[in-house]
Amino acid sequence: MKSKPQSVLANGPDRCTTSSPAEVLRAQVCSNLELSFLMEAHDGLSAAIAERAGFKGLWASGLSIASSLGYRDVNEASWCQLVDAVERIVDSSKLPVLVDGDGGFGNFNNARLLARKLRQRGAAGVALEDSCFPKMNSLIGDRHPLADIHEFSGRLRAVKDTVAEDLVLVARIEALIAGHGMDEAILRAHAYADAGADAILIHSRKSTADEVLSFTRTWQSRLPVVIVPTTYYRTPVSAYRNARISTVIWANHSVRAAIAAMQQICRRIIAEEGVAGIEPNIATLDEVFELLRYDELARADARYLHPLD
Amino acid sequence: MKSKPQSVLANGPDRCTTSSPAEVLRAQVCSNLELSFLMEAHDGLSAAIAERAGFKGLWASGLSIASSLGYRDVNEASWCQLVDAVERIVDSSKLPVLVDGDGGFGNFNNARLLARKLRQRGAAGVALEDSCFPKMNSLIGDRHPLADIHEFSGRLRAVKDTVAEDLVLVARIEALIAGHGMDEAILRAHAYADAGADAILIHSRKSTADEVLSFTRTWQSRLPVVIVPTTYYRTPVSAYRNARISTVIWANHSVRAAIAAMQQICRRIIAEEGVAGIEPNIATLDEVFELLRYDELARADARYLHPLD
Amino acid sequence: MKSKPQSVLANGPDRCTTSSPAEVLRAQVCSNLELSFLMEAHDGLSAAIAERAGFKGLWASGLSIASSLGYRDVNEASWCQLVDAVERIVDSSKLPVLVDGDGGFGNFNNARLLARKLRQRGAAGVALEDSCFPKMNSLIGDRHPLADIHEFSGRLRAVKDTVAEDLVLVARIEALIAGHGMDEAILRAHAYADAGADAILIHSRKSTADEVLSFTRTWQSRLPVVIVPTTYYRTPVSAYRNARISTVIWANHSVRAAIAAMQQICRRIIAEEGVAGIEPNIATLDEVFELLRYDELARADARYLHPLD
Amino acid sequence: MKSKPQSVLANGPDRCTTSSPAEVLRAQVCSNLELSFLMEAHDGLSAAIAERAGFKGLWASGLSIASSLGYRDVNEASWCQLVDAVERIVDSSKLPVLVDGDGGFGNFNNARLLARKLRQRGAAGVALEDSCFPKMNSLIGDRHPLADIHEFSGRLRAVKDTVAEDLVLVARIEALIAGHGMDEAILRAHAYADAGADAILIHSRKSTADEVLSFTRTWQSRLPVVIVPTTYYRTPVSAYRNARISTVIWANHSVRAAIAAMQQICRRIIAEEGVAGIEPNIATLDEVFELLRYDELARADARYLHPLD
Repeated sequence: MKSKPQSVLANGPDRCTTSSPAEVLRAQVCSNLELSFLMEAHDGLSAAIAERAGFKGLWASGLSIASSLGYRDVNEASWCQLVDAVERIVDSSKLPVLVDGDGGFGNFNNARLLARKLRQRGAAGVALEDSCFPKMNSLIGDRHPLADIHEFSGRLRAVKDTVAEDLVLVARIEALIAGHGMDEAILRAHAYADAGADAILIHSRKSTADEVLSFTRTWQSRLPVVIVPTTYYRTPVSAYRNARISTVIWANHSVRAAIAAMQQICRRIIAEEGVAGIEPNIATLDEVFELLRYDELARADARYLHPLD
Repeated sequence: MKSKPQSVLANGPDRCTTSSPAEVLRAQVCSNLELSFLMEAHDGLSAAIAERAGFKGLWASGLSIASSLGYRDVNEASWCQLVDAVERIVDSSKLPVLVDGDGGFGNFNNARLLARKLRQRGAAGVALEDSCFPKMNSLIGDRHPLADIHEFSGRLRAVKDTVAEDLVLVARIEALIAGHGMDEAILRAHAYADAGADAILIHSRKSTADEVLSFTRTWQSRLPVVIVPTTYYRTPVSAYRNARISTVIWANHSVRAAIAAMQQICRRIIAEEGVAGIEPNIATLDEVFELLRYDELARADARYLHPLD
Repeated sequence: MKSKPQSVLANGPDRCTTSSPAEVLRAQVCSNLELSFLMEAHDGLSAAIAERAGFKGLWASGLSIASSLGYRDVNEASWCQLVDAVERIVDSSKLPVLVDGDGGFGNFNNARLLARKLRQRGAAGVALEDSCFPKMNSLIGDRHPLADIHEFSGRLRAVKDTVAEDLVLVARIEALIAGHGMDEAILRAHAYADAGADAILIHSRKSTADEVLSFTRTWQSRLPVVIVPTTYYRTPVSAYRNARISTVIWANHSVRAAIAAMQQICRRIIAEEGVAGIEPNIATLDEVFELLRYDELARADARYLHPLD
Repeated sequence: MKSKPQSVLANGPDRCTTSSPAEVLRAQVCSNLELSFLMEAHDGLSAAIAERAGFKGLWASGLSIASSLGYRDVNEASWCQLVDAVERIVDSSKLPVLVDGDGGFGNFNNARLLARKLRQRGAAGVALEDSCFPKMNSLIGDRHPLADIHEFSGRLRAVKDTVAEDLVLVARIEALIAGHGMDEAILRAHAYADAGADAILIHSRKSTADEVLSFTRTWQSRLPVVIVPTTYYRTPVSAYRNARISTVIWANHSVRAAIAAMQQICRRIIAEEGVAGIEPNIATLDEVFELLRYDELARADARYLHPLD
């Protein structure tokens, strides 16, 4: 059973018997027994929706959070804005949240500060990528300079020394994105494992899963492997189960669904000069109130505000 | 032509020749010539989408912003969180933004501070409702105590004295929601007009437009009338044109579209154990990059970062 | 020995053996054995200074935090701004922090949300006063309407049900400030004890301690008593020890010291047209670097950034 | 006469006749007629104090702001935290504020985003230094790698193209701090002038003014020169007048005065076990209330809340 993220802050007997967010996430990401899935969330609402739908863990996506804020995914949003968005995501569900921490927003010192803050807000893990600051989104453009392998390993070590087991630490390798080839990717994976990573996220933007499957074969499970099949979405997940991949991240699908829906509704309202036609296609207000648990508020009102009614 | 909100900050010749956000909004809300429409936005993304679709003005909805943050619409979000959300909305389009300021988050002093901050972030107007703090969303429950008419008029006067013509000031009347009847609504409308409001938002949660049309007939256009046909969505807008209503707010339809879409996509991904099937139903990454103007960044990169390439 | 506030977040063996911030504060505030002192802090810097000087606990003062932000102590600062200031205070020392939560920034729902957020940022306790929103600072003016005793008790119960033992809950009584007399103060103290408060803060703005000592005699230690001798500063603390008062809060003395010093230095720099004369009267840069622990950064640089040097 | 920063947002007749913050600052920094002084501020309180003391302009110091937040001056504070601190400074006085923007918090894109946000919050200017991200405070340590001259010039051009005349743009040269010598400093000054800087801040950490005076002689006033005599504080300002230096920044003296005072008061309260002895050495509560203008609130209360009293 999943524990509420905040429960780790409890002082009483529960404090030592309930699982922390990191423990819950670790059981998913670091287990060989079954393939886990993390669903993208970019705000409190998308987190609540993913939880209700049945997902067991969340991915606080840098691209999605930036997009919802109206920023581009090149570290325009500050690390504080990321942390605040993560807080809303964490507070809106009981699921463990793995945070897309980009490269850590600077050097080892920025990375460990980010990790401390993510822990404070109740995140379960952080993924750090071996990019330079500011980063460029991996799926666009041709300039993705890699961080020096030693310098990035220092970032990982600093984070590990700071948050220990309180956050699952995922090292994300951009070597394939940057065009440095498989040998470099494997070399880096070993270095990041040595530096204390709990899992390796191997990123690829090919239209097939060949690259990540090739990496996984060579890597031979020294650490669990996490993948993000955004561009190679056609591959059935059975391929990942067979490859003993640990975790699949659906990294931006909620925000992309929301975009398509909002575009369509906006166009229709203008074209139809009214909302009567779209009413059946959008959530009802009751659904909104249910999602955000206004019922809990009504009960609390009765208990704390109007006890004599 | 619409001016960029920030342009009011310009020091040069433009500063006195371009229109301010408030001027642009005023031309829409305070004009009898044609019915205006404001589209809900709750974050930078929804603002950019509404602008691309062709809307001419935005409504920064309290319910929608709270929902996207994972809060309930009972003043759980602080006024700072509202202001920050408005900033992202303003920065993500060139449209004028009318902000749902609830009751002003306290007394006259809180209301005028809120107004100053909204002006600073580039909002074009603020709607203040005659509710108490903390408010309860108008569309749920039966407890909507009204503010004292004199006390609320003091809030309006304080805001007017503070921001003058820099923000369009809309007084929102909750008397019908609270069950106080039409006479009370009209009485309050006159008091708020006396206090300096630029327009009256008459709120109703009936399933027909009878209440707001009745109000409008009695009111006789002393100030422009703004309505929010969320529950009485079936009435065609021609009725509002005939009644010489100034502005219709589609107050929560983007967030409700997003919710329905995210729910559906989450369920399908779980059921289909993959994203191949939903790919045609969601925005492409290229659309995301286009919406957030990554092309501008590429041009700026070429100009400022790699001028010699 | 004092535990680092963040240590409650640890997952490992330490998690159950180290003390939480609330436990450390409880041992101070809820103990009859010795008189405890809490020193005001309003930002990270003042927190670090108080810790170095030897204080064992901090008071995150509403007046001082508001003043440092340039706000007046009438709930101009939002609860988010308070929470952010508390975070900087908590992160800048290892001392437990009792937070001045005013009246909880609204009703029971706002109060419990505030408490959750304070717990999340690592506070050790919160003091809630029986005032209305927005409050007026207790030490100025003659309008201090009290909250209804039942309504405020509901706020306390809601907070207690939400954070349980994770925060020390101090109920602050404004009845004497508001001129309602000792019987009302005692009546309220009992109601707040019934509602779950861990301690009673009895506030007075007399120039002598007579009021608080009279309260303490009548109260007879049903719960520990906390006092704030800002106006009755002449009374020696031996009087409080004799009265078995638990805790004395020096509520605004750091910020008032800072104000006097900044005023003087500003005037001298203008008068002397230079800083040579004041250099002996201000902290050296080395002291600044020492206070903020730049030495730790140098060691971390050597470890993580330049390991081969 | 100085205009209120917010006045640039006015829509009415005033909008084109009052001076903008940038215009007021430009008249100080870019004038040869008299030596100007900017006083450090790190929060709303220190800003209000500096204004009352008679200063005509403020320096929002990166070191001081970081210190007050409990951060080290190595870009631990995010750009959002800087912008928020600047907002409090701007809102707390009517003085123009030159902001210490470090290196712009990344590349040209981060720098121009920072500049847009500083303009929005009412800053009058920004100083950008040719350091890498994250920076190290100039006055400590021996690692201060300089940014590439072309890359940094790109940052300046991007800012200039973004905010034009709305912010005074000061280019800060770290070449002497970094040990690159006078030729490099002059070379960079010319490049930054070509890139659109309005003034040059030449930084030195020598114990005498020789370096900056030597720079000024060679530079020959192509652009106004700004200096920060923190380490070479003994030189009388007449030397700067003679050298036709434009502006002297007292960069951290308020925070250092506050530190010394808070340290002393903390130690005394502990040693004396009480505050009676220090009461004459700290600001009175009446001074606090006067500084923050509680009198304005009382008048506004009378006007808006209790008009019938």
